[in-house]
Amino acid sequence: MSTRPDYVRPLDIKHGRIDMGHGAGGRAAAQLIDELFARAFHNRFLGQGNDGACLPAPPPGHRLVLATDGHVVSPLFFPGGDVGCLSVHGTVNDVAMCGAVPLYLTASFILEEGFPLADLQRIVASMAAAAREAGVPIVTGDTKVVEQGKGDGVFICTTGLGAVPPGVEVSGANARPGDVLLLSGSIGEHGVAVLSQRESLGFETSITSDTAALHTLVAAMLHSAPGGVRVLRDPTRGGLATTLNEIARQSAVGLHLQEAAIPVLPQVDAACELLGLDPLYVANEGKLVAVVAPEAADAVLAAMQAHPLGRQACRIGMVTDDPQHFVQMDTRFGGRRVVDWLSGEQLPRIC
Amino acid sequence: MSTRPDYVRPLDIKHGRIDMGHGAGGRAAAQLIDELFARAFHNRFLGQGNDGACLPAPPPGHRLVLATDGHVVSPLFFPGGDVGCLSVHGTVNDVAMCGAVPLYLTASFILEEGFPLADLQRIVASMAAAAREAGVPIVTGDTKVVEQGKGDGVFICTTGLGAVPPGVEVSGANARPGDVLLLSGSIGEHGVAVLSQRESLGFETSITSDTAALHTLVAAMLHSAPGGVRVLRDPTRGGLATTLNEIARQSAVGLHLQEAAIPVLPQVDAACELLGLDPLYVANEGKLVAVVAPEAADAVLAAMQAHPLGRQACRIGMVTDDPQHFVQMDTRFGGRRVVDWLSGEQLPRIC
Repeated sequence: MSTRPDYVRPLDIKHGRIDMGHGAGGRAAAQLIDELFARAFHNRFLGQGNDGACLPAPPPGHRLVLATDGHVVSPLFFPGGDVGCLSVHGTVNDVAMCGAVPLYLTASFILEEGFPLADLQRIVASMAAAAREAGVPIVTGDTKVVEQGKGDGVFICTTGLGAVPPGVEVSGANARPGDVLLLSGSIGEHGVAVLSQRESLGFETSITSDTAALHTLVAAMLHSAPGGVRVLRDPTRGGLATTLNEIARQSAVGLHLQEAAIPVLPQVDAACELLGLDPLYVANEGKLVAVVAPEAADAVLAAMQAHPLGRQACRIGMVTDDPQHFVQMDTRFGGRRVVDWLSGEQLPRIC
Repeated sequence: MSTRPDYVRPLDIKHGRIDMGHGAGGRAAAQLIDELFARAFHNRFLGQGNDGACLPAPPPGHRLVLATDGHVVSPLFFPGGDVGCLSVHGTVNDVAMCGAVPLYLTASFILEEGFPLADLQRIVASMAAAAREAGVPIVTGDTKVVEQGKGDGVFICTTGLGAVPPGVEVSGANARPGDVLLLSGSIGEHGVAVLSQRESLGFETSITSDTAALHTLVAAMLHSAPGGVRVLRDPTRGGLATTLNEIARQSAVGLHLQEAAIPVLPQVDAACELLGLDPLYVANEGKLVAVVAPEAADAVLAAMQAHPLGRQACRIGMVTDDPQHFVQMDTRFGGRRVVDWLSGEQLPRIC
């Protein structure tokens, strides 16, 4: 993303649309990058203008983390966010869930011919704001254009690089029987907010997506109990149920939940009832689940509740010794059921 | 990409197709990842099964490089390659062009509902082979599915992380008047090979894409003349002409080419004549252009010619002092012309 030639006239962002030339590597592509992307994402690494960004390495003793995600959410704009901020939050969170401090992001755009430049600018501005707020610059990127009918407006693939400080060991494989399960807040808002905007489903709701960057919450948790946080995961696609099944399988343990302890907003409950969904399987984009050592649970929970994104944090269950690696749940009605993997399709294009 | 639940029956790769469930984060998504992606890309980092990959950092004194690219080539399979190996080569090369040793790759797939699993497996196998051959593992990834008619088979976004050894300083901004321009081989093959397969253009040709990973060529060049290599670029989308204009602009210099010195295969020349294209603007995926200090030119050129991917390497011109930053070329016919930026659309979806 270098200094480029002078353009005859500036991009007409108000009325213009993406055309195939914006992806062909010539003057039009350079202009789009200069006047739309580089201007919004501006930072000294992006300004290097090479095929990649050259970056300082973290201090010795740190390990690196790479995480990547494609974002194909539909619709592109939803209550509480859009594909732009979502693509930043999602990848910042994936890096943070490995116990790493997110340092840099890359962004690759696949644009559909005919997409309004005004909408693209809105998405890019949201992305830039999310990156700035998170303190994680977008250091390099790419733009491709596909013909109308071969894409769907905008797809954004983001990759994050982070550094794990010495002494931090967080992995989905580290849960042990007796550990405590913590959840940072209420579940299901992102999925319901997106579904409420689908043409086929459109319903009125006051629910907004919880999309948010969780890395400062993670930092507070790790600081509160060094060595006490064993697993961190953000329950996105597939929801809390899927995430917990992944942890159980990866750590070769069972999990035992208390349904009554899992916070669900009444509006989310109502919408899920209407749609025939179980909030346990609905995506979140600003929540995390943690497995912590029993002796660290109080300190970590207090640190979560003291953070703006963890005020509703709570204990939702514990890790058990179970050779079948089941996630079981005591229901509100006094029964117990297995919370299984989701079988079929539930919510496509939710992120 | 963790250990997953047991599946009722294995994926039917021969007859199966991508459905929306493969992107929904449940059991079907996990099975696709396990049986297709994880099996092909197998390495200890991918096997960690967390939201990202935790990786050893390079030795102290190294800087990091991040590069990212979306790959939307159409058609997905072309003579000499496919979107799979292309997505590895393209990103390995972008990292290498920053003077870095490529260490790790990430891959994010956007799949269209209905895409045959057999084709996907072929692409993934090609990608895995390219990564293995390059010695750069795919350490983490993501898979999304969009409805039929909202994508185009497979899009792949790859991100590469590399390390720049101490003392290496390569940037598009480093060209100085008097420097020598080197090209690693003949131009235009990738673009012509892809175009030859387009339904609308389909023509018979023996030309195959030059798609290749150039990082070992770069390493040999850097080794041959420490500090002597100032700029490295792979002339992909937009071709050699666009790349040279980018360098001229970024370094605030002029460039002066000898047309007769630029190798073009006769079949590429003939195809370009047929299609009304100038090979200078046609994409390459296995070539590089270098700006080297005059005193280093002989050594770097010899190192290139000794490498299998640089056997045809040659001097094609030099860097001049030009306040207008023009790329000029002495033509075969004794004239001189400005090699300008490409204005409109030339070759969409070539990579």
